[in-house]
Amino acid sequence: MGVIVADITVSIDGFVTGPGPDLEHGLGRGGEALHRWAFAADDEVDAAVLTESTAVTGAVVMGRRTFDFVDGPNGWSETEGYAPGKPFRPPVFVVTHSVPQSRRLTTQFTFVTDGLDAAISAASAAAGEKSVAVMGGADVVRQAVQQRLVGRLRLHIAPVLLGSGTRLFDGGPPQELHQERVRASAHATHVTYRVAASNGG
Amino acid sequence: MGVIVADITVSIDGFVTGPGPDLEHGLGRGGEALHRWAFAADDEVDAAVLTESTAVTGAVVMGRRTFDFVDGPNGWSETEGYAPGKPFRPPVFVVTHSVPQSRRLTTQFTFVTDGLDAAISAASAAAGEKSVAVMGGADVVRQAVQQRLVGRLRLHIAPVLLGSGTRLFDGGPPQELHQERVRASAHATHVTYRVAASNGG
Repeated sequence: MGVIVADITVSIDGFVTGPGPDLEHGLGRGGEALHRWAFAADDEVDAAVLTESTAVTGAVVMGRRTFDFVDGPNGWSETEGYAPGKPFRPPVFVVTHSVPQSRRLTTQFTFVTDGLDAAISAASAAAGEKSVAVMGGADVVRQAVQQRLVGRLRLHIAPVLLGSGTRLFDGGPPQELHQERVRASAHATHVTYRVAASNGG
Repeated sequence: MGVIVADITVSIDGFVTGPGPDLEHGLGRGGEALHRWAFAADDEVDAAVLTESTAVTGAVVMGRRTFDFVDGPNGWSETEGYAPGKPFRPPVFVVTHSVPQSRRLTTQFTFVTDGLDAAISAASAAAGEKSVAVMGGADVVRQAVQQRLVGRLRLHIAPVLLGSGTRLFDGGPPQELHQERVRASAHATHVTYRVAASNGG
């Protein structure tokens, strides 16, 4: 079984979106500064982090609000999305209370209505030996880390203070992680933490 | 004039203390996990970060609550404090509304009652060619960065989620910083950001 990685970009002050995220502005106002590392395409470290992450990913997990944005007018397409332009586009498991009645994107997505744990299990089965990427939103990543449903937390820390928006971490029990790898680029600090399993493994 | 650096240790979720900080527990409950990098003394990078920081510091700025802890029963001594055991112990400028009536530590501290800007100016004058370290608490560091009274923000990001406590950043206007240097140790990720002056410099 591959490793399960929560992977998300965060501001210095802990936000994964700016204020006012909606279907057309998934990152809120000013939130695009978060993802400069992924789009600037002028830094070898950023390119390696991006390529290595997507190359090992066999399935993706996301929350319903993230899907609604991905399915929205500024969402995924042939050129935007997870591993755009790559021959393999991993299946995506969406944690949701109810399956959407209609949607723009009709392939690649499976809706899981019995919780995050079930979605990660389904993704894990689909991924086989490859990794599962839990890509957001904040609620899904936070729960996955706090419930130790992931083995790794990879944060891409962008050099920006957003001031407000959607906080990644907001409460919860104290939890020690193990800092496993740090890579700095011109646009971000990429840190991988190991999350101990609930059985101590 | 030396550079003015806000320098503070923070959890992954953005806290500089755990819950319930008080005069006897300046870091709150569980907050000591933050400073493992500074005390473990088993990592060359941590040692270099610590030595280089203190070696260039000519004066320190802190807030009143930080002083009250530093002056308290578990506070500074011959062996604990800023640059303990070093021949030069930098003067400390405390931002406060009122000068304390009595205190345990009688040397090294100057109380500044006309604001953070004035405290940083006084520290800067005292430091000469050396750096000024703005070391906390959260309010003082946050204001110093937001008001661009510092040229650098150095964060020591400890691999722990505290869940609650004193947040370093909590609101304020959006602000882009420039990621200048990243150093990883076994216990923390040390990131230095450049803060643009308010005149754009």
